[in-house]
Amino acid sequence: MKRIFFLVFAFALVSCSKISKNSEVIVTNFSELKISIENARPGDIITMANGVWKDIQIIFNAEGTEQAPIILKAESPGKVFIEGVSNLKFGGKYLVVDGLHFRNGFSPDKAVVDFRVNDSIIANHCIFTNSVIKAFNKMQRDDADHWIQFWGRHNTLSNCYISGKTNRGPTIRVFLKGNEHIYNEHKILNNHFGPRPPKGGASAETIQIGDSSSSMSPSSTLVAKNLFEECNGEVEIISSKTNFNEFRNNVFYKSEGSLVTRHGNYSVIDSNYFIGDGKNENIGGIRIINTGHKVTNNYFYNLKGKNFRSPLAVMNGIPKSPLNRYGQVTDLVLAYNTYINCESPWQFGVGVNINQKEVLPLSEIRSARPKRCIVANNLVFNEIGNKSIVVEHDKVDGVIFKNNVVNKRGVDFKDYAGIKLLDFQLKQVTEHIYLPSSSIEIEPFIGFEFENITKDLFGNSRTSTNGIGAVVNQNANAPDILDKSNYGPSWYSDEAKLRESKTINVTTNENLQNKIDEAKNGDILVLEGGLFSIKTSLSISKTIYIKSKEGEKAILNYSGEKNTPMFQLNPNGVLSLDGVVLKGSGSQYAFSSLKENMYSHFELKVFNCEISDFYYALKVYKQSFAERISFENTSILNCENGLELSEETNDKGDYNTEYLTVKNCYFNNVEQNVIDYYRGGYDESTVGGNLVLTNSEFTNCGVKEKNGILINTRGIINVNISDNIFKNNPVKLVALLWGAKNNFHRNNEISNSGDIVVEQNLKLKVIY
Amino acid sequence: MKRIFFLVFAFALVSCSKISKNSEVIVTNFSELKISIENARPGDIITMANGVWKDIQIIFNAEGTEQAPIILKAESPGKVFIEGVSNLKFGGKYLVVDGLHFRNGFSPDKAVVDFRVNDSIIANHCIFTNSVIKAFNKMQRDDADHWIQFWGRHNTLSNCYISGKTNRGPTIRVFLKGNEHIYNEHKILNNHFGPRPPKGGASAETIQIGDSSSSMSPSSTLVAKNLFEECNGEVEIISSKTNFNEFRNNVFYKSEGSLVTRHGNYSVIDSNYFIGDGKNENIGGIRIINTGHKVTNNYFYNLKGKNFRSPLAVMNGIPKSPLNRYGQVTDLVLAYNTYINCESPWQFGVGVNINQKEVLPLSEIRSARPKRCIVANNLVFNEIGNKSIVVEHDKVDGVIFKNNVVNKRGVDFKDYAGIKLLDFQLKQVTEHIYLPSSSIEIEPFIGFEFENITKDLFGNSRTSTNGIGAVVNQNANAPDILDKSNYGPSWYSDEAKLRESKTINVTTNENLQNKIDEAKNGDILVLEGGLFSIKTSLSISKTIYIKSKEGEKAILNYSGEKNTPMFQLNPNGVLSLDGVVLKGSGSQYAFSSLKENMYSHFELKVFNCEISDFYYALKVYKQSFAERISFENTSILNCENGLELSEETNDKGDYNTEYLTVKNCYFNNVEQNVIDYYRGGYDESTVGGNLVLTNSEFTNCGVKEKNGILINTRGIINVNISDNIFKNNPVKLVALLWGAKNNFHRNNEISNSGDIVVEQNLKLKVIY
Repeated sequence: MKRIFFLVFAFALVSCSKISKNSEVIVTNFSELKISIENARPGDIITMANGVWKDIQIIFNAEGTEQAPIILKAESPGKVFIEGVSNLKFGGKYLVVDGLHFRNGFSPDKAVVDFRVNDSIIANHCIFTNSVIKAFNKMQRDDADHWIQFWGRHNTLSNCYISGKTNRGPTIRVFLKGNEHIYNEHKILNNHFGPRPPKGGASAETIQIGDSSSSMSPSSTLVAKNLFEECNGEVEIISSKTNFNEFRNNVFYKSEGSLVTRHGNYSVIDSNYFIGDGKNENIGGIRIINTGHKVTNNYFYNLKGKNFRSPLAVMNGIPKSPLNRYGQVTDLVLAYNTYINCESPWQFGVGVNINQKEVLPLSEIRSARPKRCIVANNLVFNEIGNKSIVVEHDKVDGVIFKNNVVNKRGVDFKDYAGIKLLDFQLKQVTEHIYLPSSSIEIEPFIGFEFENITKDLFGNSRTSTNGIGAVVNQNANAPDILDKSNYGPSWYSDEAKLRESKTINVTTNENLQNKIDEAKNGDILVLEGGLFSIKTSLSISKTIYIKSKEGEKAILNYSGEKNTPMFQLNPNGVLSLDGVVLKGSGSQYAFSSLKENMYSHFELKVFNCEISDFYYALKVYKQSFAERISFENTSILNCENGLELSEETNDKGDYNTEYLTVKNCYFNNVEQNVIDYYRGGYDESTVGGNLVLTNSEFTNCGVKEKNGILINTRGIINVNISDNIFKNNPVKLVALLWGAKNNFHRNNEISNSGDIVVEQNLKLKVIY
Repeated sequence: MKRIFFLVFAFALVSCSKISKNSEVIVTNFSELKISIENARPGDIITMANGVWKDIQIIFNAEGTEQAPIILKAESPGKVFIEGVSNLKFGGKYLVVDGLHFRNGFSPDKAVVDFRVNDSIIANHCIFTNSVIKAFNKMQRDDADHWIQFWGRHNTLSNCYISGKTNRGPTIRVFLKGNEHIYNEHKILNNHFGPRPPKGGASAETIQIGDSSSSMSPSSTLVAKNLFEECNGEVEIISSKTNFNEFRNNVFYKSEGSLVTRHGNYSVIDSNYFIGDGKNENIGGIRIINTGHKVTNNYFYNLKGKNFRSPLAVMNGIPKSPLNRYGQVTDLVLAYNTYINCESPWQFGVGVNINQKEVLPLSEIRSARPKRCIVANNLVFNEIGNKSIVVEHDKVDGVIFKNNVVNKRGVDFKDYAGIKLLDFQLKQVTEHIYLPSSSIEIEPFIGFEFENITKDLFGNSRTSTNGIGAVVNQNANAPDILDKSNYGPSWYSDEAKLRESKTINVTTNENLQNKIDEAKNGDILVLEGGLFSIKTSLSISKTIYIKSKEGEKAILNYSGEKNTPMFQLNPNGVLSLDGVVLKGSGSQYAFSSLKENMYSHFELKVFNCEISDFYYALKVYKQSFAERISFENTSILNCENGLELSEETNDKGDYNTEYLTVKNCYFNNVEQNVIDYYRGGYDESTVGGNLVLTNSEFTNCGVKEKNGILINTRGIINVNISDNIFKNNPVKLVALLWGAKNNFHRNNEISNSGDIVVEQNLKLKVIY
């Protein structure tokens, strides 16, 4: 105690000499930092010395002023690393944190950066800027947090790079629980949201603003000028759940999800870019629920999403919906948007489920169609003609179409008053951006308050010249929307340096683990032919390719302990295995993830291998997640269990891999869990996982299968079982598929193995 | 056609001469009025000539400007009467209607005054002022309308007198269906809302702003400086169902209902007066549902309402409530209010019904308690000490009490941190208004944004001196809140001129109907003893008292047609009958209402009479309503049917009388429907009707009663059956009572008549 008092006093003396000026101190350790914060006055600048700061929990509780904020900054931006069990909390007002890099660690709390200290010490007018948070994940997927929590009012997140969140919880969460947090006018500006991999279940938005229980509250959060790149966490990139939020000038680039007005009303979605790759159906656009949203001046390119992931999905609501379900869409304004190569961009009545009246309670039936909606002055161009610009999931009787233009392509489509076919071409003005090559000679329709839409996508005036689509002047200069210098910190680039992968040869008398450790990310281990004796698990925590030497065959014989894996997949372990024989002694696993602390994703690709005599060919533990697991041209023989990914039994909607692919494989004498891929808990809006099982053969499998089903896919949304042979498997069913979802089977040869049954509606626990 | 064109032309010529000036025309008929409107330009004044305008449907569609509105006014305010099938619709902008009197008629449409012509012609910045709408009722109670419908934005209703609506539908209704109608900022100012009698069922609010389906919309309607006098239509005087509405400086005087934030959020209820009479438990205060309401500076006096009708009722919500049910109360601010003689003013968890979990679906259970509420700086004074200032219908764990003051009265009450007992007295400063006689020496608590509460109830500043309760300075001058010259039109007074009632003697050889017609409202007919032979129904359409001469007995013998009443109660018929014998021939009714077009209420009081040999003693038809029906010291003998008020079988929550009273009566040989009083349809918030059945005797009744119940009260909320004798009535039950409601029985002597059974939860059709 005494010592601290002394320090404070000493510091006070030191700073006394500068009393007329603002203080600028460099702090080199956590104690100094704390004392500086305690003594901070308006205008002070506290500089954290360059280096690694480990296990620090910064409470930046101070009172700056609008004219003289208190600034906490890195000595050199990007050279101050926050690692270990660390976080930052703002409390008070007019505070700025600038230039930090959070990495190699995780928050001890519910947030990495929190705009409050506790219930009563809240931040207002505070800024977190020019910083990085990367892969700052909790140790386990179910251990939820948010990386940035907004509370209070007028706080800002700007020019940050944020990527790699794998655990449960939206990356950014805005809270409105209490009068102190409404009318918040927070700003999320100029950030680069880098890749967030699929989480394998819900609660992995990049931004969530409010929640259903605060969905009646006025919010006015502004999300503007950000780049969202491969934000693939879940079906919603941004989940707007309160009123009056604004989304302007953002770029959504190859992000598997949508901007969704999930709860709340009267949001503005203006001048954003939604860029797809022309193939990936998971890349969505805007999904609309509730009242009074304005979608104007947006540009949609090369989007192939359907239904929930349509370029524009306007949902059906539930009549008198419960607070946490689907409000009817009313009073939507969709005007001046441009859709290039998006096929059927407008889907109305998405989520209609009247045909499930028999199996669902009435309070779950989305039968309330969009009402009082106006769709006007939009431009649609499709290279390939399309019969249905508008997809009617339910009757579209509450939508008025006015002065929309679609290019002629010799294909007739359903006639809508207000959608005009016109012969026009495109020209490319910059990467991803196309405009009509000549002007569209149609006057825009001027609906209620359309005079307030004064600018176009590029910010040019609509008041002097106006036109159909997102851009008024087809000769305008387009911005380079993917110029990354416009987003994130000035000092940080996510461009990976290219490094040629090295090949390392391994002989049978060398220690394979040593060689793996020696290899760098992306390297290739080439095994000579012959017997490798493996006595303990091989630990994989980088990207590595292991294969047999051309024309030879490496045989890996595992004599490790019971219930241990030959290959243990650690966080960030990405293993490709090619042309290798794996052999156990009946009690071990060929592959498994870590049982605990699987704080980041793994991946596994197996080609041309033979796997035999294991207790499990693959065991994926709870809270582990791989974006892809594939087995091709591989035999799995004489194993008690096959591929098991079924531990998410708490039914929160989670699963263990996004894509499980089994092609040209041969399974013989696998006694149970031959393929067991499970997702527990139902929420109609999520869309994983994906099983592709083709051209494979199963014989004498499933003898011990307790549920009598050979291929278990319960809860998995996309299942394709095609062109396989099932012969002499003593089970009741080959598979039980979910007809209401994207499950299907084709051209399978089944003998003496039960059958494939499709049930339209499977009973599942709802997760909301 | 030609003629109209000519008129237009002629008018154009006339007005040409004044082209540089604004035109001022007096119109004397509807054609002229229409033409004047068609030609109206900014600044024009159209004057309607004094007199009665019958069956006119005015469409005031024109375009004024802010500086130069177009005015439609009465030649002399109050001397222009709109009668018959008439109404007024505004369309366009900056229009004023001034000085009209709507009476003796009804609207052909959904509104008397409508701020739109149709879906696309809407009023903005229009004013209806200095006018009267009185008893302008549709012919039938179920034929719904609103007297004033608000659409568009910035419309005003000011200085009007509005009273006597009896048919279904809120008197004023604000609509928000569509973007054109949100952020409306309508103003309802300085009006006098005179008596609206109980409707006998739902949908009789004085003001309803929005509805559940638009409850997410921003509204900002202002209701200020109005007097609400005996607005007794239903349980809600004002039903606020959208966001951001404001209620300021209104006086609620002896009005049976509450100001209710039924749907929507963030309303402001500031500086209003709620004045009761110290007895009537139907006079309520403020009932709170949903989020973020601010209740400040209000004054509550002599209110005895409980539960839903408490001075402050804070309801429990339904978790994740459906849109049309009860949202949880959160973030309520209740500060600086004064409660004088309101006993237990604060009731929390009102409407909790967890104990009905067995009989109601989960989506009906109000178990979500108020959360994040603050109750601070309020002043409570009770003449008689009270143990429970706070009534906890459910646990009050989400409410923080701070610096509230209650007068000491020697009675202990439950200890709340934040409620302080203090010894202080009151002094009267004007009628109904009392302030502490000495200043309360407690500093107010300053909660979040309390600094924005800058004024007190009287408009005095809180920034210089602040204090507990609605008034900062106990020596301040109080306004005369009941000075009616501050409300309504300048030219109109609702003060009834006192007139002494006249007594008219009637002999047996005079025609009674003639005498009734000759009598004025409130007169007394005294019948001499002996036989009056009545051949056709006596029609009652005024207030009249008919009695036998002192010491004599008039016998009224009815020989009218089958199924006709001896006394036919017409709209506004208020009949008191005293000491008379009524005799039929078995096929007629003693009393009935009109079968159709019962456009206003009736009343019936029977004392000391004998009624025999009728098919019905009383038959009240569907859509008829009496505030009171009573039988005292009266015998009903040898009738096929007794008192029947049971035709509201479409189950919309309606019923036929508010109070049915039977005291000291004798029923003998009434074969069925002895008393049949029915309310169909259940909505937890409504509170009628009321049956008091005491000190009466029933013998040999109910022999033909199909349902086997003697006294039928299904759906009636308040039932008191006490101190009666039931003897030898061949029924299964004397009565089947509703335990969950205010039904009770006591001290009845029952022999050979079945029993009285109480069921806790009756099954009823819900009406929402």
